[in-house]
Amino acid sequence: MKKKNSSKSIKMLGERKIIELIQKKLDLMPEMSVSFGDDVSAIELEKGRLAVLKTDMLTNKTDVPKEMSLWQAARKAVVMNISDFAAKGVNPLAMIVSLGLPRTFTIKDVEDIADGLNAGAREYGAYIVGGDTGEASDLIIAVSLFGTAGKKEIMLRKGTKVGDIVAVTGFFGNTAAGLKILLNGLETTSDLRESLISSVFMPKARLIEGLALRASKAVTASIDSSDGLAWSLHEISKINNVGFLINKVPISSEAYRFAETNKLNPMDLAFYGGEEYELVVTIKPGLLKKTINKIEKIGGCLIPIGKVTEDTQILIDINGKKETIESRGWEHFKSEI
Amino acid sequence: MKKKNSSKSIKMLGERKIIELIQKKLDLMPEMSVSFGDDVSAIELEKGRLAVLKTDMLTNKTDVPKEMSLWQAARKAVVMNISDFAAKGVNPLAMIVSLGLPRTFTIKDVEDIADGLNAGAREYGAYIVGGDTGEASDLIIAVSLFGTAGKKEIMLRKGTKVGDIVAVTGFFGNTAAGLKILLNGLETTSDLRESLISSVFMPKARLIEGLALRASKAVTASIDSSDGLAWSLHEISKINNVGFLINKVPISSEAYRFAETNKLNPMDLAFYGGEEYELVVTIKPGLLKKTINKIEKIGGCLIPIGKVTEDTQILIDINGKKETIESRGWEHFKSEI
Repeated sequence: MKKKNSSKSIKMLGERKIIELIQKKLDLMPEMSVSFGDDVSAIELEKGRLAVLKTDMLTNKTDVPKEMSLWQAARKAVVMNISDFAAKGVNPLAMIVSLGLPRTFTIKDVEDIADGLNAGAREYGAYIVGGDTGEASDLIIAVSLFGTAGKKEIMLRKGTKVGDIVAVTGFFGNTAAGLKILLNGLETTSDLRESLISSVFMPKARLIEGLALRASKAVTASIDSSDGLAWSLHEISKINNVGFLINKVPISSEAYRFAETNKLNPMDLAFYGGEEYELVVTIKPGLLKKTINKIEKIGGCLIPIGKVTEDTQILIDINGKKETIESRGWEHFKSEI
Repeated sequence: MKKKNSSKSIKMLGERKIIELIQKKLDLMPEMSVSFGDDVSAIELEKGRLAVLKTDMLTNKTDVPKEMSLWQAARKAVVMNISDFAAKGVNPLAMIVSLGLPRTFTIKDVEDIADGLNAGAREYGAYIVGGDTGEASDLIIAVSLFGTAGKKEIMLRKGTKVGDIVAVTGFFGNTAAGLKILLNGLETTSDLRESLISSVFMPKARLIEGLALRASKAVTASIDSSDGLAWSLHEISKINNVGFLINKVPISSEAYRFAETNKLNPMDLAFYGGEEYELVVTIKPGLLKKTINKIEKIGGCLIPIGKVTEDTQILIDINGKKETIESRGWEHFKSEI
């Protein structure tokens, strides 16, 4: 039986199961400060300081809609990684990049990629300090990010307490709507179209917000929403053995208008999208107001959307009727662009 | 004219020119302790300490002969990176890995890769602490390595002085011979075949030697030989504006026998191979003997092969006749397996 299983193709599994398979085979570093499966990895330097590492790979096969430029794809490869640092409240200092390039690429293609990588790094104050290139059939951009953090300061996925408030750094749905325009040919007004697809082409990482949240000492757990808001909530729920009662759907007005005109469920756009880089955090209730003010002062926003419950379900209260938020979201191998 | 150039395909350029193109587009981090183009990158932590980073990508398109197992390919992806740390005298602590996996891979394939990565890491005392997977047409393994080093201790490519001795940590040619067996179907006796192809499948990084060389304080410049011995000598020559007079061809007896029976020039196997992971160092002449003893005591070897000259040519003295060692070696995009 075992043999039969191990000859099964990975496309049946999805990315998360594949990562589980891999983790099972690895010897664990003793006394890891950040557990396997959090958004970043960390190695203890001297007392109390951590070296923080993250790698996230963009492949044009699954991460790049046709209309996206190489400059944008390269910048996005950086933003994906910065977003994980943002969620942990870690300042990115430097990055190294492994590039898999198709032989048919032109000099201009490579220059556009380099420009996009540099633009992404500089946008968040980091520098590209090295890398490697090799030949590949698809464009592959594997960015590895480095920074340092105080061991007690870094915001982990673990730490949520019952009664905490769950909050997000922005409104959801624009990317999911943008992808529906780009990949499924859905239509909308031209100004709305512009705005929705730009959220796909020019995603932003919430670094300033993440750093301010860390400084606030109000956050008990934090994750980004790159696999969708529902998935992020389920992750925090699983790790902390808690549930959520959501009382506000943080959907953007643009995504809401798009859903209306296309007869889509706005809930789907808000919860089950992906490739969105908001932060999802749980906050000590006594510090909520102060933290919201702090984030607004730096030009961001922090929107409370519900509270942490003892019951491990994730429910949303819509006009008094409770519905379950499912555990699904974007996943490589399983999901198809 | 410029436009015409930039629409040229990169396959005309080769990996080094592509990396140059990319570097030109990047903003440099101020006060870099290790220059762009050395084997590793570094970021200054507190006074005198460096965080050291390296990424090197293995693609099955160019780096993996058909007969090589996935376990071996994954282990090699680690060894490639460790070798660069070895050349700098830096101890690898942790690594993160981005994996591009074809959809057709089986669970067993992924498990073999994970086992190979773990084996490579543990062989050199490091741990895999995180990573990412995504879908790709070819297998891609991008390893990023992390360690720390004293700013004054790290061995760089720059530093060679005229009169220094150039030395290597082992004999060359086995990998080039092994690749000729695997890729060009050349033949030899079965015991020789076994040994030569195992140097392709199971390369070793000279980490213990590199750490001991750093501790010796005898090394003025250091590089590994992953692109071939000739190429490494040319790099050290260019960066330091010196030349070499080589008086010994460090070819292994096995590669020599293979060359003889196949009517190949042993010089070619020794100098113009690649995918070999010996260290090539320049040593203060007064400390040579002591350093050789030290390396032998830890079970390694250090073989003087010539001296550093003011004349920037790289010459080899064969029975009193001087020949030039060309600037060529293994290169992605340009070279074909």
